[in-house]
Amino acid sequence: MRIAVFPGSFDPVTKGHEDLIYRASKMFDKVIVGVLVNSNKNSFLKAEDKKRILELALEDLPEVEVKVFDGLLVDFLRENNSKIIIRGLRSMLDLEYEMPLDYGNKVLDPQIETVYLLTKPEYSHISSSAVKELMKYNADISSYVSEKVLNALNELK
Amino acid sequence: MRIAVFPGSFDPVTKGHEDLIYRASKMFDKVIVGVLVNSNKNSFLKAEDKKRILELALEDLPEVEVKVFDGLLVDFLRENNSKIIIRGLRSMLDLEYEMPLDYGNKVLDPQIETVYLLTKPEYSHISSSAVKELMKYNADISSYVSEKVLNALNELK
Amino acid sequence: MRIAVFPGSFDPVTKGHEDLIYRASKMFDKVIVGVLVNSNKNSFLKAEDKKRILELALEDLPEVEVKVFDGLLVDFLRENNSKIIIRGLRSMLDLEYEMPLDYGNKVLDPQIETVYLLTKPEYSHISSSAVKELMKYNADISSYVSEKVLNALNELK
Amino acid sequence: MRIAVFPGSFDPVTKGHEDLIYRASKMFDKVIVGVLVNSNKNSFLKAEDKKRILELALEDLPEVEVKVFDGLLVDFLRENNSKIIIRGLRSMLDLEYEMPLDYGNKVLDPQIETVYLLTKPEYSHISSSAVKELMKYNADISSYVSEKVLNALNELK
Amino acid sequence: MRIAVFPGSFDPVTKGHEDLIYRASKMFDKVIVGVLVNSNKNSFLKAEDKKRILELALEDLPEVEVKVFDGLLVDFLRENNSKIIIRGLRSMLDLEYEMPLDYGNKVLDPQIETVYLLTKPEYSHISSSAVKELMKYNADISSYVSEKVLNALNELK
Amino acid sequence: MRIAVFPGSFDPVTKGHEDLIYRASKMFDKVIVGVLVNSNKNSFLKAEDKKRILELALEDLPEVEVKVFDGLLVDFLRENNSKIIIRGLRSMLDLEYEMPLDYGNKVLDPQIETVYLLTKPEYSHISSSAVKELMKYNADISSYVSEKVLNALNELK
Repeated sequence: MRIAVFPGSFDPVTKGHEDLIYRASKMFDKVIVGVLVNSNKNSFLKAEDKKRILELALEDLPEVEVKVFDGLLVDFLRENNSKIIIRGLRSMLDLEYEMPLDYGNKVLDPQIETVYLLTKPEYSHISSSAVKELMKYNADISSYVSEKVLNALNELK
Repeated sequence: MRIAVFPGSFDPVTKGHEDLIYRASKMFDKVIVGVLVNSNKNSFLKAEDKKRILELALEDLPEVEVKVFDGLLVDFLRENNSKIIIRGLRSMLDLEYEMPLDYGNKVLDPQIETVYLLTKPEYSHISSSAVKELMKYNADISSYVSEKVLNALNELK
Repeated sequence: MRIAVFPGSFDPVTKGHEDLIYRASKMFDKVIVGVLVNSNKNSFLKAEDKKRILELALEDLPEVEVKVFDGLLVDFLRENNSKIIIRGLRSMLDLEYEMPLDYGNKVLDPQIETVYLLTKPEYSHISSSAVKELMKYNADISSYVSEKVLNALNELK
Repeated sequence: MRIAVFPGSFDPVTKGHEDLIYRASKMFDKVIVGVLVNSNKNSFLKAEDKKRILELALEDLPEVEVKVFDGLLVDFLRENNSKIIIRGLRSMLDLEYEMPLDYGNKVLDPQIETVYLLTKPEYSHISSSAVKELMKYNADISSYVSEKVLNALNELK
Repeated sequence: MRIAVFPGSFDPVTKGHEDLIYRASKMFDKVIVGVLVNSNKNSFLKAEDKKRILELALEDLPEVEVKVFDGLLVDFLRENNSKIIIRGLRSMLDLEYEMPLDYGNKVLDPQIETVYLLTKPEYSHISSSAVKELMKYNADISSYVSEKVLNALNELK
Repeated sequence: MRIAVFPGSFDPVTKGHEDLIYRASKMFDKVIVGVLVNSNKNSFLKAEDKKRILELALEDLPEVEVKVFDGLLVDFLRENNSKIIIRGLRSMLDLEYEMPLDYGNKVLDPQIETVYLLTKPEYSHISSSAVKELMKYNADISSYVSEKVLNALNELK
């Protein structure tokens, strides 16, 4: 069984994330969505809320599981018997950001492979930080997050 | 069974290609290496020589098969019951080249996914055209192609 | 009256071009589409066919005129009393290509301004060379060119 | 009448900004310089000082008006009957930064167009943050800001 | 005598830095490693520790000297009778970051030249911030820093 | 004595080349300008004309010598007792082009260093191919090449 990990902050999960996870779930036997608890960055949502909203958004994908993790990604993969990381690329800048992480992970565990999927063009402008910026001004975010996520975010207010 | 296609010109196959095909073969049940016969570009090797050299280079990987194809990549995937294209990325420029092809393939068949792997840093300077340039001056290409490929190329002289 | 020039090869005109010309026509009083006759590059369509197909594609935009030109773009602008060039950007690579042309035009005539519009994401994979490649294999190009252009191209066969 | 908006932080306005605003003012009937009050970022100058310095720097351009705004750019455009945003590009990185904003604005209001002008090469190294860094060390900033701005900044000390 | 300056934060010095300094020391008569005391950024190591660790790491290179400096780089060069800055490039993004600094330094002193060396591929994923991130999780950093630096960092704990 | 090689096609030598060679000549004891005879590419000027025009353009720089070479750059360096290649960078794209060449040269001879200088902003739009394109239309090229080169090119007509 091939298990892949899709790591991220998901602050909050966007339509872009959902599409990538859906596509990854067709390619591997199981996809574990790993919510990174990053103590360095200020987070808009709490880890448990991120997990709950992700589970809601992905409830129709039985091969997808959501977990929260702290620490190094390679350790999270080992704990989950996975050798495959999945990441989305929206642009050349994303690739520049990913390259040292990819090589760095390979140094820590040479068997780990990071697999990249291109974000669909219609989602390429979407980012969690854009969602947060728009929410600050009560702007419409329905083209950035799915309906389930929109409702869950509204309930948190 | 998940079948992935690794398309290319392989004029000739390099250490970079071999490493990517090896890594892909660990991730999918079968990898079909598709040698594109491109009538637009002048080729150094004939298609049958490319296929023979690839088979030699990849003979230890039972889950890998080499085929020659002409025409659209999406048609080649359909004929081989594959929905997955594998491509290597050496640099941001490679990504720029891949993006319109990826979206273009998705327009022709929305179920097709292109999966990218980063070329390892030690192979990032390698390209088939560099090999050909070096061969022109009888320079040492042993860091660009594997020993089996080197021998096969020397026999073709 | 502000007259802008949208130059290009239009070999053939794509949905991406049409969208950019439409958007430009809302911003300036007149847009002249300049079909460059480039003796360096092999062209798929003849200049008169390009002009005819462009006129067909843009027939609903009264503020747009199509002209064929040879020589330097700055001379074409001068002949048409225009100081504004409009160009589309699909990617960072397009920008790299445009930068020296932009500065070069400013050296020849400092009053000339080049104005860039981003290609819409859904058209970012479209290029005239992709259309030609797809036509070679009789593939469906209806997502690349508009219906009028598709019909005109079919009649030329 | 075509009204364009040139938004920014202007902390402080540089020679690069002034040149772009001048060039934009030749292309549209009116240019509104929009000083964004961004509560997220620490600002060196107060909004009223930014506005006053901009008005001083641009006093010879009668078709340019300076306004302070808070909130979404699309709302600021609507209030000012404008459909056109003008932005400068110094580099490929600037373009990567602009792309999601451009598409994001088009989602909020599809009629809005963002128009890009390339920063002149001689101003391509200039940024407001470089000015602030140089001021910290009492270095000469006369090649970064115009004389009027230099004097106004000195008076604020 | 040609004196070159290699400036940086060195928080901490990595194998990538060491390799670049070694290569620079073969090209110029003397290389001064300039440890920038940047009051804006939170530093992991104190300036005196950075200097001590650098001296330890570079003790076999007699033509290299380590100094701490505050203020503008051009002033540090002047004090050390140097006209040459040496910088490493790992990627296109590094170049984008360097370009305005390079032109900015040339404005302050037109005789100053910045000379770039490409980071070797095997070090391209290495950055001081990656080292710090890995140290936070007690991960193995022996592929990021040399043995001498590793020992010195361990003693500081 | 430190000898550096500045290789290129110089078809023809531009103001950008001249500035880079001048700057390099201040940094090393001797600079050898290597005119590559590339049998792959169609050349506008003959190798002997390139050499003669370069010598004319650089006649005031006694530490600069012009030589024609065919074959691998590393062999040309060996013959000239040089370990240093100098290259100019106008843009991120130039860097992408240079990276595999740099690593490739290091594979052939690990002691060779390639040193990059940024083209000055005012020359960043200049390329030999732009000069040739402009000459085709009898356009003014006096901002692209120095007066001596302009005269020499006119005499060749």
